[in-house]
Amino acid sequence: MMRRQGVTAPLGFRAAGITAGLKPSGKSDLALVFNEGPDLGAAAVFTRNQVKAAPVLWTQEIVKTGRVRAVILNSGGANACTGPGGFQDTHATAEAVADTLSNWGTETGAIEVAVCSTGIIGERLPMDKVLAGVTEIVHEMGGGLEGGTDAAWAIMTTDTVPKQVALHHPGRWNVGGMAKGAGMMAPSLATMLVVLTTDAKVSPEMLDVALRRATALTFDRLDIDGSMSTNDTVLLLSSGASQIEITQAELDAAVYAVCDDLTAQLQNDAEGVTKRASITVTGARSDDDALVIARSVARDSLVKTALFGSDPNWGRVLAAIGVTPVQIDPDRITVSFNGIPVCENGTGIPGARDGVDLSGDRIEVVADVGLGEGEATVRTTDLSHAYVEENSAYTT
Amino acid sequence: MMRRQGVTAPLGFRAAGITAGLKPSGKSDLALVFNEGPDLGAAAVFTRNQVKAAPVLWTQEIVKTGRVRAVILNSGGANACTGPGGFQDTHATAEAVADTLSNWGTETGAIEVAVCSTGIIGERLPMDKVLAGVTEIVHEMGGGLEGGTDAAWAIMTTDTVPKQVALHHPGRWNVGGMAKGAGMMAPSLATMLVVLTTDAKVSPEMLDVALRRATALTFDRLDIDGSMSTNDTVLLLSSGASQIEITQAELDAAVYAVCDDLTAQLQNDAEGVTKRASITVTGARSDDDALVIARSVARDSLVKTALFGSDPNWGRVLAAIGVTPVQIDPDRITVSFNGIPVCENGTGIPGARDGVDLSGDRIEVVADVGLGEGEATVRTTDLSHAYVEENSAYTT
Repeated sequence: MMRRQGVTAPLGFRAAGITAGLKPSGKSDLALVFNEGPDLGAAAVFTRNQVKAAPVLWTQEIVKTGRVRAVILNSGGANACTGPGGFQDTHATAEAVADTLSNWGTETGAIEVAVCSTGIIGERLPMDKVLAGVTEIVHEMGGGLEGGTDAAWAIMTTDTVPKQVALHHPGRWNVGGMAKGAGMMAPSLATMLVVLTTDAKVSPEMLDVALRRATALTFDRLDIDGSMSTNDTVLLLSSGASQIEITQAELDAAVYAVCDDLTAQLQNDAEGVTKRASITVTGARSDDDALVIARSVARDSLVKTALFGSDPNWGRVLAAIGVTPVQIDPDRITVSFNGIPVCENGTGIPGARDGVDLSGDRIEVVADVGLGEGEATVRTTDLSHAYVEENSAYTT
Repeated sequence: MMRRQGVTAPLGFRAAGITAGLKPSGKSDLALVFNEGPDLGAAAVFTRNQVKAAPVLWTQEIVKTGRVRAVILNSGGANACTGPGGFQDTHATAEAVADTLSNWGTETGAIEVAVCSTGIIGERLPMDKVLAGVTEIVHEMGGGLEGGTDAAWAIMTTDTVPKQVALHHPGRWNVGGMAKGAGMMAPSLATMLVVLTTDAKVSPEMLDVALRRATALTFDRLDIDGSMSTNDTVLLLSSGASQIEITQAELDAAVYAVCDDLTAQLQNDAEGVTKRASITVTGARSDDDALVIARSVARDSLVKTALFGSDPNWGRVLAAIGVTPVQIDPDRITVSFNGIPVCENGTGIPGARDGVDLSGDRIEVVADVGLGEGEATVRTTDLSHAYVEENSAYTT
């Protein structure tokens, strides 16, 4: 029986999730992922928003060493836009984790502790609760090798389900991960926190390459509402505990597979989603051009409300294509919904839209712009009443 | 008593609005604005969407002459993405207007007739109804000097009220106008049709300068949902009928005032609006930078849902500022809602948001980025349930 889930699926990792009292709901809100080694390899990517939360500023610095022993994550507060005091809170949290781990028998410095936070922007964390929680969670983690699932629950905010994945190469090496995030997913990452783990024997440089390649094709192409969080962080840790050395290509493939699976889970559980859509652009001059066009369609409020209404409104798709800086020829564009062409050479196909059924919860939009071989797919969702409800009532 | 309204407020203009049968609702759907002269000056600005409707392609060409005698406008169909056949329909409509006016006694060429269309994208217009309507509307217009209001009604789509304005310099010269548009208002124009008229004696070059200056500060800064229409057109016509020569500065001021008033009317009547918000950015390195930042805030779905929820969510404002390509310093940003600062130097002011009341239908957001003297204001609306409802049910 596989008891070890998500981040604890690979050898050499422990995790825990507890209630520290940061969420008014009383649900669990503090998570720890601990790398037992022997390696402490780490790589990370972060939000490109210029407004970065204190834990992002901290973790960006410490991960430059390529070495992380523990990740402490809290929901119930983003610790963003909290000034120098907020940064001191992050630092104090890392120090407390390091001290507690050291007391517990694993000599640890604060510089080996990554910190992630998610929740409301602009409010200081209740540090008495955070610090008490740190002591408790280290001891909780000591109890066993499971805990991945508890950690995945503790980082949730508006998520309705925890998101975990494990990729096993039986008897050899493994990659696991957890993610949270249900809004603000774009243009690159989201108030999306992801921790990935592997027991393969790899260098920090290999981790960095694999992580950047995978996130560019997965989390970076999930675009729910065009907003980008102050807190997005994706960490990839390696323990080397399998003692199996692998190639960059093997690592790339496994990390991609895990990121792709988590991205689909995030899309499934996005705020207010009633339709999961993939927007594929083909025939662009380059893949980069295709991505720019696909993003423009995926972000268009009129396209997204049409998806909510199960309406194959290809005219709105064309209008969204036409506003990008990429030069296009309107008379060469072909659009299909769920495989049925509705517009050819920029002109509607009479009666075609009547044959399209978008009543299901999956919608595939393909736009061929007829200029070359470039292509890209962006995943998105509809713009629904539930989205408006959830986001208008979030802090009040 | 001033019977002449909107586009017919200046001397030398007639207008009409009739039901040609293009709208299933049976409401009026065809409008004509006719310039009696002696001048036939004209200037125009159009959507920057690369996907342009047939009437835009036509009118862009004919307005290069600086001379327009008549504008025929229809609602009930955008004639966009309709291929070469759609362009022939536009041409045939202009020919029909020209022939009918010629028969009626005013020698007119098709090249003097501007065409504007609004409604669903991707469907051909029922040309039998359009051409029959053209004959009828020219005779209708012959009946009197009023008709501006009928024209303003006939161009409405999802608008709930007609939009007209008149600026009188009593006994001297006048500017009038009408507008329609309640969605797709950004980044520059919207499925927004505007016809402006003046009886001042001015050259087409003066009209062009005044129109570009005014639209850059008004219609271009109304940003409802970040989408941009295939059909946006703003026309400015001069009759010279007042015989009053004016300066560029006088014309600029009058055209700006009229555009500003119509922009406010469009914002008031935007699709699904429950809050009218102005987003002002100050302290940028330039006015252009300020405009880029203000647009980013005005378009952010999370900011807009917060406005709907009467929530002074300054954290979302900061996050929207941070994603622009303009380099900012998060630690210098100050944000206020309705005059009350809630965030200073990038950090929340404890308790301040409790003093903010956003329950009214007007919200002023001011963000000072602390880097210079540049400033700009963008008008927008909230993202409400009604917006989702209206746009998900529009064509189905």
